[in-house]
Amino acid sequence: MKNVIVGQSGGPSSVINSSLAGVYCRAKAMGADKVYGMRNGIQGFLEEQMVDLDTVLGSNELVKLLRKTPAAYLGSCRFKLPDPEKDTALFEKIFSLLKKYEIAAFIYIGGNDSMDTIRKLTDYGQKIGSPICFVGAPKTIDNDLAETDHTPGFGSAAKFIAAMTKEAIRDEVVYSTNKTIYIMEIMGRNAGWLTAATALARGADCPGPDLIYLPEVPFDLQAFRAKVAALLEKKNNLMIAVSEGIHDASGTFICEYADADKAVDAFGHKQMGGTATYLTAFCEKEFGCKTRAIEFSTLQRCAAHFASQTDVNEAFQSGDKAVEAALSGRTGLMATLLRANEVPYVCEIGLADVHHISNVERLVPLEWITEEGSQVSDDFIRYALPLIQGESYPVMENGLPKHLVLK
Amino acid sequence: MKNVIVGQSGGPSSVINSSLAGVYCRAKAMGADKVYGMRNGIQGFLEEQMVDLDTVLGSNELVKLLRKTPAAYLGSCRFKLPDPEKDTALFEKIFSLLKKYEIAAFIYIGGNDSMDTIRKLTDYGQKIGSPICFVGAPKTIDNDLAETDHTPGFGSAAKFIAAMTKEAIRDEVVYSTNKTIYIMEIMGRNAGWLTAATALARGADCPGPDLIYLPEVPFDLQAFRAKVAALLEKKNNLMIAVSEGIHDASGTFICEYADADKAVDAFGHKQMGGTATYLTAFCEKEFGCKTRAIEFSTLQRCAAHFASQTDVNEAFQSGDKAVEAALSGRTGLMATLLRANEVPYVCEIGLADVHHISNVERLVPLEWITEEGSQVSDDFIRYALPLIQGESYPVMENGLPKHLVLK
Repeated sequence: MKNVIVGQSGGPSSVINSSLAGVYCRAKAMGADKVYGMRNGIQGFLEEQMVDLDTVLGSNELVKLLRKTPAAYLGSCRFKLPDPEKDTALFEKIFSLLKKYEIAAFIYIGGNDSMDTIRKLTDYGQKIGSPICFVGAPKTIDNDLAETDHTPGFGSAAKFIAAMTKEAIRDEVVYSTNKTIYIMEIMGRNAGWLTAATALARGADCPGPDLIYLPEVPFDLQAFRAKVAALLEKKNNLMIAVSEGIHDASGTFICEYADADKAVDAFGHKQMGGTATYLTAFCEKEFGCKTRAIEFSTLQRCAAHFASQTDVNEAFQSGDKAVEAALSGRTGLMATLLRANEVPYVCEIGLADVHHISNVERLVPLEWITEEGSQVSDDFIRYALPLIQGESYPVMENGLPKHLVLK
Repeated sequence: MKNVIVGQSGGPSSVINSSLAGVYCRAKAMGADKVYGMRNGIQGFLEEQMVDLDTVLGSNELVKLLRKTPAAYLGSCRFKLPDPEKDTALFEKIFSLLKKYEIAAFIYIGGNDSMDTIRKLTDYGQKIGSPICFVGAPKTIDNDLAETDHTPGFGSAAKFIAAMTKEAIRDEVVYSTNKTIYIMEIMGRNAGWLTAATALARGADCPGPDLIYLPEVPFDLQAFRAKVAALLEKKNNLMIAVSEGIHDASGTFICEYADADKAVDAFGHKQMGGTATYLTAFCEKEFGCKTRAIEFSTLQRCAAHFASQTDVNEAFQSGDKAVEAALSGRTGLMATLLRANEVPYVCEIGLADVHHISNVERLVPLEWITEEGSQVSDDFIRYALPLIQGESYPVMENGLPKHLVLK
């Protein structure tokens, strides 16, 4: 049994395909016979929807193009395995399929839920004495996985967000004679890493956001009002960054208040108002100046045209490490990124027990959140800056990025 | 009198500073003594808020950085001059200031309103027999100026929008097993050029948007419903592009319906719902599938990190041409971009009478809008594709684009 199978799961990122390339290249280098890709993760595998990666990645040029293509090349899924103690039927099916395809190593690239899948497959495999090895490769723009210094996908999203923050501030300040408040809404329901990344815009040519609100600290609307009022005394153009997940002390998301204030619309559907939209309406009412809500939406997680080369490389290396471990007979692990040295930044790839990872969420340390919860410290900047270094520009064709697409 | 003054006006773009660089470089090459930049356009000039460009652009390196910096370096304004037939006081003030600073050539970089400024100054100047020459350089991402094949700023915005459309489609299709409808909202109140640019995403590796709605054609909600229903029979993941300015046959903007359906919120403020948000709510109600509204917001007009090199060059050339004409004693003109040859694309810079430009809006030709107003033709692609060619990547510093900022 020398075959490998690899899947991608959860939300997309700019570099999840670089991890896939790492898995494929190392598996072939280690003599794997076939490397199968699951279509739409474990969900497709259960229907034997697979692709032989040799047939679609048969040249260095195609592998390079894969590394520069955003989102999950193999397709994704959100599929939660049942508890193997309670429901064994699905596991029996999975292991019979793994046997049928002579799989030695099973690699899953994803976030928290994906590591939960690796954990359960590992536990079930050990229970039945299976020799198959299960190893995860980390992926999430949210940067919230435990046991790793950071996650592949975060650096590229952070780089795009910080660059767009600089560009949006340039855009706003052209009307420097009028008072304006722009509010950017960034992904991150519980973890504020990506919203904190807007602070990377700070520098000699940019003030960065005036206020930054992360979900790690409860949001107080009146304290916010006071801070905005004080800032407007000093400057005309405010840029504020908020995480979509900010909530008040009672745990109610700010965007839920937006929702509560609205009637159901013509379709009987309660529209989910964005946090930024809610807060700009508040500011317009309170301060009477021009406001604008900017939601980065999915753009922030798929902007591979401006990916971090550091991130692309580390994604590749973590895929490489995962399959190397699995083909060496190790199981129940996730590849991790370890900061071996601060300055100059050195990243080493490690391995951690997946039992310590699944269902744990790593948040921004509270001591990095300053100014009564409205800024981030230089410690955060020192942490994040190395992760956005280097540009991975796309393969271009006819003026646009070219992507590798699985038909 | 050998001095030049230049201002920037209206909404920002990725390349308006490249036009400014063109004005500066040509003015110096033609022996201009001083080149003044108005801060915040004519509004700042009236308060004598100016900068001597030699003091801030004194090296090739700084000029290069200016060309790669988005939004208006000098600041902008939205200031409409009165009718010179009715109110001469302001014109007397402007011309006395122009005399004070020994201005021979007045260059204004902007869109429709800016050309209105050039027109009025020209007319007043001719009435009083002033030798000062007034020439405009075109700028608008909206691409809606008359007498020019296209406008500087459009190509870069179109390139970013088309690239993000490709990336967002990659992002959406990872969940290919579920039905999803994503709706992107693009700038353009009356002209659909930028929304049409999403069609550039079409190619061997991308289907492009399934439906594209421009403001040039009235939008019919029930016809839209029928098209979406028919598409969902054939495929799972729909991507739809709409202009913020789409309206129904009665002329009511679709986003106004969103507004009408909502109660005022907690602040007594009627929130302006986006067109995309309204239509995703409609689709969710009608089809019960996952939807997502993506508003490009200001990101689309300031994304200089992925500008079109063709656009950056043409912006520079149009600034160059404008000041060359003015210093040669010509007045009442705007530099224009002329398509001298289709394939290969050749652009020549011309001049047109500003009286034919101000207050005229150039829309997408109706014959380029197909499929009952839900797609654009290959004629549009042939028109727009040359304008997004080449990448003007930013000057990078510490992982982020570096900008030139006027203190």
